[in-house]
Amino acid sequence: MTIPNNPISAADAKAPIDFYFDFISSYGYFASLRIEAIAKRHGRTVQWHSMLLGVSVMKVMGLKPLLETPLKGDYVLHDASRYMRRHGLALARKISDPMMDPRPAARAFYWVRRHHPGTEGAFARAVYDRYWRLGKDLSLVHEIAEIAAQDPSLGIDPDALRSGQDSEASRQDLRQAVAGSIERGVFGSPHILVDGEPFWGSDRLDLLEEWLALGGW
Amino acid sequence: MTIPNNPISAADAKAPIDFYFDFISSYGYFASLRIEAIAKRHGRTVQWHSMLLGVSVMKVMGLKPLLETPLKGDYVLHDASRYMRRHGLALARKISDPMMDPRPAARAFYWVRRHHPGTEGAFARAVYDRYWRLGKDLSLVHEIAEIAAQDPSLGIDPDALRSGQDSEASRQDLRQAVAGSIERGVFGSPHILVDGEPFWGSDRLDLLEEWLALGGW
Repeated sequence: MTIPNNPISAADAKAPIDFYFDFISSYGYFASLRIEAIAKRHGRTVQWHSMLLGVSVMKVMGLKPLLETPLKGDYVLHDASRYMRRHGLALARKISDPMMDPRPAARAFYWVRRHHPGTEGAFARAVYDRYWRLGKDLSLVHEIAEIAAQDPSLGIDPDALRSGQDSEASRQDLRQAVAGSIERGVFGSPHILVDGEPFWGSDRLDLLEEWLALGGW
Repeated sequence: MTIPNNPISAADAKAPIDFYFDFISSYGYFASLRIEAIAKRHGRTVQWHSMLLGVSVMKVMGLKPLLETPLKGDYVLHDASRYMRRHGLALARKISDPMMDPRPAARAFYWVRRHHPGTEGAFARAVYDRYWRLGKDLSLVHEIAEIAAQDPSLGIDPDALRSGQDSEASRQDLRQAVAGSIERGVFGSPHILVDGEPFWGSDRLDLLEEWLALGGW
């Protein structure tokens, strides 16, 4: 156990909200559009964590991918479309489109976190935007590099990002992050921890806000 | 396709809300406490449907029981306890207690529907109350009969209920109802259909209310 250097000020400051997501998760994308505003309303920041449903859901939990699960797959397609209508979202990617391999984007996320700490949340939102709203295939590394090229305000060199996402350090960071998410009981996308309290699913954001406002029940 | 005898008045009347539940489902119980009030606020009635998660989740979807699913099982225990604190529920049964065989109670439900039509909703609520709040084992048929004995306002003869739940007609009614729920895409508890629109989970009741108020998005 690590003792904080300064327990008094550490207790006064509110811990960041831990936001876990997989880039291939539509519900994770939906939540990514709202989490920063929710955190801000309650004096919090957001710590973004890219994770892999392929590890938590398929390997650890032993479940099928959501859309391949009988009955539930159809419900999810219907529910996600309904969510988009309700929130006025227009996406180039269809929920039923074949999923990309999320690992290059996830590795790029951890490369950004390592080399441009503090920028990884903005980078994650840019990845989500490019994948879901614009419908780009982010398993293609030049599409990942385009994120940096398209938005100079991120301050990320596209070529460094392109090669960095494939580095052993990025692979190792992703493996550690995924293992860490499992250790903390995280299995879904979005999966949110507030001072360790878990909220799974984009349909729990209102509950999360109530928890933040009241400090729990 | 069946043409209504009187399309005009059929169009004016609002269809009942279809409420699907399994007696062993804590989230189904939570929703059962609120569904009638929600329906009433929107000029609807509730059609109660007892179903079996053992068929939908385990046989059709090929999934493990919720509490036996790694990571998710722990989350559900935590989440259900949190729900109970938030809603001030005190239950004799623990979520983690061994589950009963829900079939005797489900057959009793369909016996009541067949022999006391219109009473099955009140009976379902009494079953839920006895199982979750009072912690009784409703796989024991004398405990099911006690429901009728304890509440004469139901107008159900305890002995007739006791033997009727084990009749071939009740077994057949349950089989047909479960098959019908699967045909309609119902897989969870609670699972609610409003004019065919599906809402899965007790965390969707607010969304259901919005849908009822607005007529959809």
